[in-house]
Amino acid sequence: MQLGIGDDAAVIAAPDGRVVATTDLLVEGRHFRTDWSSPQDIGAKAAAQNLADVAAMGAAPVALLLGLALPGSTDAGWVLRVVEGLATECGRAGATVAGGDVTAADQVMLAITALGDLAGRAPVTRSGARPGDRLALAGRLGWSAAGLALLAAGRRPEGGSLAGLVAAHQRPSPRYQSGVEAAIAGASSMIDISDGLVQDLRHVAEASGVQLELATALLPGAGPLQDAAALLGTDWRGWMLAGGEDHALAGTFPAGAVLPGSWREIGAVRAGRGVLVDGAEYAGAGGWEHFR
Amino acid sequence: MQLGIGDDAAVIAAPDGRVVATTDLLVEGRHFRTDWSSPQDIGAKAAAQNLADVAAMGAAPVALLLGLALPGSTDAGWVLRVVEGLATECGRAGATVAGGDVTAADQVMLAITALGDLAGRAPVTRSGARPGDRLALAGRLGWSAAGLALLAAGRRPEGGSLAGLVAAHQRPSPRYQSGVEAAIAGASSMIDISDGLVQDLRHVAEASGVQLELATALLPGAGPLQDAAALLGTDWRGWMLAGGEDHALAGTFPAGAVLPGSWREIGAVRAGRGVLVDGAEYAGAGGWEHFR
Repeated sequence: MQLGIGDDAAVIAAPDGRVVATTDLLVEGRHFRTDWSSPQDIGAKAAAQNLADVAAMGAAPVALLLGLALPGSTDAGWVLRVVEGLATECGRAGATVAGGDVTAADQVMLAITALGDLAGRAPVTRSGARPGDRLALAGRLGWSAAGLALLAAGRRPEGGSLAGLVAAHQRPSPRYQSGVEAAIAGASSMIDISDGLVQDLRHVAEASGVQLELATALLPGAGPLQDAAALLGTDWRGWMLAGGEDHALAGTFPAGAVLPGSWREIGAVRAGRGVLVDGAEYAGAGGWEHFR
Repeated sequence: MQLGIGDDAAVIAAPDGRVVATTDLLVEGRHFRTDWSSPQDIGAKAAAQNLADVAAMGAAPVALLLGLALPGSTDAGWVLRVVEGLATECGRAGATVAGGDVTAADQVMLAITALGDLAGRAPVTRSGARPGDRLALAGRLGWSAAGLALLAAGRRPEGGSLAGLVAAHQRPSPRYQSGVEAAIAGASSMIDISDGLVQDLRHVAEASGVQLELATALLPGAGPLQDAAALLGTDWRGWMLAGGEDHALAGTFPAGAVLPGSWREIGAVRAGRGVLVDGAEYAGAGGWEHFR
């Protein structure tokens, strides 16, 4: 950042000559609940959601701008803790908070814009997957959905693997660096998994004009998800295939590419359309619907 | 713009190697009223407010991102007309709509981020005014405030100069190019007048450590303002000195600089602190408070 908060606008370094930009709104009651998440968690989650979109283009996050709408009754300390969480997550991603705006509203809302730098590389879009490519994943799946299910069932585990699920819902921890690593490794397409694996892979399949075939045996270990599913009497596969908000990255790589260490192969790209799970259409839930 | 809506993020040209970025929230009932402004006007005003901040840095607006929060009952046609107004104002400024996000909320809210390009020039900040500089203005003052006063009094003039005031409130028309022209002419400081002339000049005086002296005789002609003030039995000077949302630009220029054609001298920079109006402290209203 070259010039920050306190003028009409910020001036942010964009040495590449292009800037990656994305914006998202988070609304109280829909994207977060103040009784389930600390203000730091709310800020961190809002930042993570946008920084992950930057990473999914193969860019390094650089800066973030925050618009904050608040009821007049909002405690100033609460606001500072939201900003603290936001700044902490920015730090984890290598970005700085470059500007912001605060206004009164009936409902708490965070409007985030994240900017990133491609360092001379081509952006990795959703449309570059080709038949014969390998389908791969960086990050966790279903943890946030399982944590939300525990909270919704009134379970607040104090420790152990279940507490990790709740923590994952409260504050996702995307591997931002995996996006840059994928771009360097020659990924042909990439997407941030925010609405659920199958749902988001459909976007890649459609944009690329290909079929993506997932092999569930290749997905990451489901240990804590299985524990939570047993406790709640539900199916953990739904969380893994359709749970949102973990902000894992999914990408495709040409057959000859070497997958970076944080990536694992989870399937393949074929000629055709749509997404297959173990060779069949996925009949589970559609996209992630947040709370409602 | 190099890559637009439909991927995880947009990729926007930043040939300068830096990008100017600013963000603002506009909330229904506070920043706009759907019964006083058309959806096109609401979109245009939201865009103008942010694009003017970019111009006030001496940058050319390049791109805009829109976050839109809407009650579930919102008419889709209304939303399209908001976006139409936003895109039209972007076009007037030379910028494109590069990305966006839509979510449900209890209240209509627009979150705008505008990006701009400095084309190799230094940004023109609020802190560069020096004693001996000339104080200058590009654009109209008080028109939006007078238009709002007419609307609040239940007056909706059908034509003539008063209708122009209401139109100015509904849709400001900043002179974006004046910002770039000022930077090229060597402006030492610049600010977007969004909260009222005196109020915003105080920011420049404070950031620069100087006193700004305004001469009201040098301000732009008040014809329509005088007509509206006579009709409403009020003082037009308050609108001109404290009215917000016209998004004129105020700047300071070294004594030897040639003012660009769209700029007029309105005062001078002295050693000292604060803002003087015709040699005295301004006793009128403080900052612009929107509706409440």
